[in-house]
Amino acid sequence: MRPFEQEFQTLNEALQEMGALVAQSVHRSVLSLVEKNEDYAHQVLRDEARIDQMEIQIDDLVASIIAREAPVARDMRFVVVAIKINTDLERMGDLAVSIVERSLASLRQPGLQIEVNFSEMANLVESMVLTGLDAFVKRDAVLARGILSSDDGIDKLRNHINCQMIELMKKDPATVERALDNILIARRLERIADHATNVAEDVIFMVKGIDVRHRDPAQLALASQL
Amino acid sequence: MRPFEQEFQTLNEALQEMGALVAQSVHRSVLSLVEKNEDYAHQVLRDEARIDQMEIQIDDLVASIIAREAPVARDMRFVVVAIKINTDLERMGDLAVSIVERSLASLRQPGLQIEVNFSEMANLVESMVLTGLDAFVKRDAVLARGILSSDDGIDKLRNHINCQMIELMKKDPATVERALDNILIARRLERIADHATNVAEDVIFMVKGIDVRHRDPAQLALASQL
Repeated sequence: MRPFEQEFQTLNEALQEMGALVAQSVHRSVLSLVEKNEDYAHQVLRDEARIDQMEIQIDDLVASIIAREAPVARDMRFVVVAIKINTDLERMGDLAVSIVERSLASLRQPGLQIEVNFSEMANLVESMVLTGLDAFVKRDAVLARGILSSDDGIDKLRNHINCQMIELMKKDPATVERALDNILIARRLERIADHATNVAEDVIFMVKGIDVRHRDPAQLALASQL
Repeated sequence: MRPFEQEFQTLNEALQEMGALVAQSVHRSVLSLVEKNEDYAHQVLRDEARIDQMEIQIDDLVASIIAREAPVARDMRFVVVAIKINTDLERMGDLAVSIVERSLASLRQPGLQIEVNFSEMANLVESMVLTGLDAFVKRDAVLARGILSSDDGIDKLRNHINCQMIELMKKDPATVERALDNILIARRLERIADHATNVAEDVIFMVKGIDVRHRDPAQLALASQL
């Protein structure tokens, strides 16, 4: 076993545990909305404290690895990426909480005529989050690359909800607030997907040592063959 | 001069330069919108490439500090925080670009009857960004703490725009798309302010070694007297 293999293992497990908790919160936040289920909402609010606590613990763990082991090259990239992923996960958790806040408010309002398909969007987002963490732990750039292409699906689903809601608001002014809420919920899901995309980009950077942020696709295709 | 004083100085200057560029982009994105000025919009789009480039350079700089100097204690916190601030700045830049995209689209649309007060919100956001970087460079927790309290002002301004636009949409369905655009622009400004708040929290963590994320205000007041 290499000198800090054990600490890396602990860090892996902590980030994976946090990722699973965040993915579960995303799932429950949307279930609470779709099924008008208050229990799910309260579970998300309860788990927020745990996610916040884990963020601090993981930062501490990373800091102690830097201080004691002075990692270099690939190990150093692993540590930098762990800090970034930790932040992304915590913000995804915040977004799940903010969906739940809307969901709790909507329990007291009459439903809209139109069924909004949040579940499909939420399932895709959830799988992006989990795959990102899996790619990180396995140091698997191919897995990470798959997440980048999910982003188009998210855009389409979000646009569809947007168009539906705009049409509704135009037809019936009484729906404006509730339709706007749905637009903002779809945006929150999209932002969680954006964070998952950030995680994927960081994993590719970690594994390949190339930075996929801010590169054009042609360059990337070339780099992936290296 | 301490061993890595020179590298820290370089890192400080790079983050400050990036922060100034980001604050300028936020400023110009809103000017392009309020004054319907296409030149400002194109300047923001042009500067995005520079911001992206700086993000990568700063990550590289941090990585080389970690690898060569193995910083400990306060220096190590400085390095971890630099990674986080770098990410926050780049995302603020992205949000400025996304405001500009809306602004360019709005040039081709007739204006709304209501004057939306984006400038006040933008000025506050811009000053939060610059103060955050200043607090980082000066390692000044008091300055950083001031930013946390600006957040209420942002909430109020955003809520005001929200209410105005909802009322407008209800009165005149023809305004729905444009009013929704304004709501989403106000949210982007709010998200830039959120990133500035993250920077401030990280600076307080760096200076005091206490984590202000996820703490209640009473605990914080106590900690600030320590």
